Amino acid sequence: MGQTIIEKIVSRNIGAESVKPGEIVTVNVDRVMIHDIFIPFVAEKFEEMGFTKLWDPDKVVLIYDHMVPASTVDDIRHFKIGDAFAEKYGMKHVHRSDGICHQLMTECGYAKPGDIVFGTDSHTTTYGCVGCFSSGIGYTEMASILGTGELWIRVPETIKVVINGKLPENVTSKDVILRLIGDLGADGATYKALEFSGSTVDDMTVASRMTMSNMAIEAGAKAALFAPDEKTAEYSKVKLSDVDWIYGDEDASYCRTITYQAEELVPVTACPSQVDKIRDVKEVAGTKLDQVFIGSCTNGRLEDLKAAAEILDGKKVADYVKLIVTPASRKIYKEAADAGYLKILAKAGAIITQPGCGLCCGRAGGILTDGERVLATNNRNFLGRMGTSKVEIYLASPKTAAASAVAGEITEA
Amino acid sequence: MGQTIIEKIVSRNIGAESVKPGEIVTVNVDRVMIHDIFIPFVAEKFEEMGFTKLWDPDKVVLIYDHMVPASTVDDIRHFKIGDAFAEKYGMKHVHRSDGICHQLMTECGYAKPGDIVFGTDSHTTTYGCVGCFSSGIGYTEMASILGTGELWIRVPETIKVVINGKLPENVTSKDVILRLIGDLGADGATYKALEFSGSTVDDMTVASRMTMSNMAIEAGAKAALFAPDEKTAEYSKVKLSDVDWIYGDEDASYCRTITYQAEELVPVTACPSQVDKIRDVKEVAGTKLDQVFIGSCTNGRLEDLKAAAEILDGKKVADYVKLIVTPASRKIYKEAADAGYLKILAKAGAIITQPGCGLCCGRAGGILTDGERVLATNNRNFLGRMGTSKVEIYLASPKTAAASAVAGEITEA
Repeated sequence: MGQTIIEKIVSRNIGAESVKPGEIVTVNVDRVMIHDIFIPFVAEKFEEMGFTKLWDPDKVVLIYDHMVPASTVDDIRHFKIGDAFAEKYGMKHVHRSDGICHQLMTECGYAKPGDIVFGTDSHTTTYGCVGCFSSGIGYTEMASILGTGELWIRVPETIKVVINGKLPENVTSKDVILRLIGDLGADGATYKALEFSGSTVDDMTVASRMTMSNMAIEAGAKAALFAPDEKTAEYSKVKLSDVDWIYGDEDASYCRTITYQAEELVPVTACPSQVDKIRDVKEVAGTKLDQVFIGSCTNGRLEDLKAAAEILDGKKVADYVKLIVTPASRKIYKEAADAGYLKILAKAGAIITQPGCGLCCGRAGGILTDGERVLATNNRNFLGRMGTSKVEIYLASPKTAAASAVAGEITEA
Repeated sequence: MGQTIIEKIVSRNIGAESVKPGEIVTVNVDRVMIHDIFIPFVAEKFEEMGFTKLWDPDKVVLIYDHMVPASTVDDIRHFKIGDAFAEKYGMKHVHRSDGICHQLMTECGYAKPGDIVFGTDSHTTTYGCVGCFSSGIGYTEMASILGTGELWIRVPETIKVVINGKLPENVTSKDVILRLIGDLGADGATYKALEFSGSTVDDMTVASRMTMSNMAIEAGAKAALFAPDEKTAEYSKVKLSDVDWIYGDEDASYCRTITYQAEELVPVTACPSQVDKIRDVKEVAGTKLDQVFIGSCTNGRLEDLKAAAEILDGKKVADYVKLIVTPASRKIYKEAADAGYLKILAKAGAIITQPGCGLCCGRAGGILTDGERVLATNNRNFLGRMGTSKVEIYLASPKTAAASAVAGEITEA
């Protein structure tokens, strides 16, 4: 009997022949990520639990991203607590303004194929893009891992998602994952692992896969995995021969299989205010916009900025529309500057912000108010996420976002 | 009997032979500037006063800069009120995310040599850099101008400031104006006009002069004027022969004359928490920093970013120091991208934000907390301006700022 990717990773981690979905096992954690919002709570819990040292300081990564640069006095208290904790316990991996946690975790090689990684953020599923089993946890669990290096989990069942064929020019991996979330529903994959395969997935960059693993949590998934290939090996700086055991066996037991034919997919959008309220962009075309946001751990990467720059080159953002562009990391910012994308975007009228979470988490940098409407490339359109509860948030791809910024209304690229 | 620059501008404006300091006159306003913070109050007062149309929609400029992109829901209410007012009364000059009001007023040619311009911001003195009499007013006065096109003023006395010689390499116009404010005191020029001249001033770019006219209000000045020259004519796109009447006569009556020899000037800083608490940078060298801010209407121009980039090229910002760089306008952002300064700054570890007021007014993007210390290139170090009242703010030039960011402590460039 074969195994799914997540079963293989967990088995290998605990030194078992094979684990089965539903089994409770204690895994050895390869790396953890804590971000600025949760570090004060983690730090307090850690000492309350009586721990006096980190199980392995090299395996702990602290990233300031949601609050950088600070917009309130309270924000900095988080940094101060984080800095003090890092110094007291000898942490070396602290990123104070390098970009979004999920981007940095793979970009800096903290999360590798085959690893088990936990983070204090729901979108920690992201690292599945390189074949890593990663998931979000609470601060109490995190404090416990910091002291012990272990966490018990229930082995998830796996849903197999197969996508074959070539995506139309204006359809991106964002449209694929939005369509899947729409089909599954926001709780359709709760505590299950998603496993992506097929020729469409094979053709995707690691960055495009990252968009999909990132949003898997929006269907409730515990993890979302892609088998590593040559592209993964290059991106993660590992030998493919060392990670070629990470794939789902033909005879593995999947709780469900969903298939898509790429040519049939179209640009879609998640309408206010549920992530699974998916409509074809054509169905809502003409909806007037006040703002467009291109960024986040979902779609703030170089290929996303490039796609936007290609559409905006020589064009102008519509009057009355604010286009806010936020690169996901300092590295991406520099690459986008080198490639000339920032210049093109600025000339088209975009507001280019510092790298980080930016508007996605609604803390600053583009808050909206009653009756305003924003189309955004991030991962959540919950009520009140980017301003008042009377703001309408549409989620879509960077291509749809760029084309809509020019049109001043929702439109297909 | 000769006249000072401001006396000439006022005389010409009202069609008088000559005005004298202390005289009350009613001037015809050439242009007004309203920014996002004050537009709701101006709009309300305007209608309360019974006005039904703007005296001249072409002469009114509305600029969103302090709150762009919005960091709170209330910020956007200002935009909505501004947009509605602009539409109702047929305003054409509305800048929604193009940069800081004072930068745009000269950059876009709204304030020209010889003009009389008022704005709802204390740093409206800035436009004196091109030989324009400009000053800050309250929202009631602004509402009244919007309806009538007129304002009564008392003609100010003039202090003549003469600076001759060549500035040392690490001394900029920011050091000159800080030194002057220190010598005058924060109320030393209250309701007086400053008039700058001398070979040092002749050698300065318009941008460098702008730094000085911008900060004149920190000594209480009503206006701060430079006689236009070839550089001004090019910058403001006017014929020098049309504005060559704007200079102070040899036999004009100045209430005071202050002279400096450029070679004797050194890099200085305004220490917490008074703008006139000026010390040589050497005296406070070694003071540890948590943050450095390069930006604002005082020092967020291309030459400022260039100076910073030259110092930071190939270097790294010190650990634990956040360097935040905020170009003053969208145009400057694009030019800095074209010239490669943004790349250099990003590589050195700077956080480059969208153009605008940014951290200067303490609304977002780098707020500090108790016990933290920032060195900044803007114009005010008042208690609580960039966070809690226990934050220490030092003001200095972009050169001092860049060198200090690398050192992690206050140092001369």
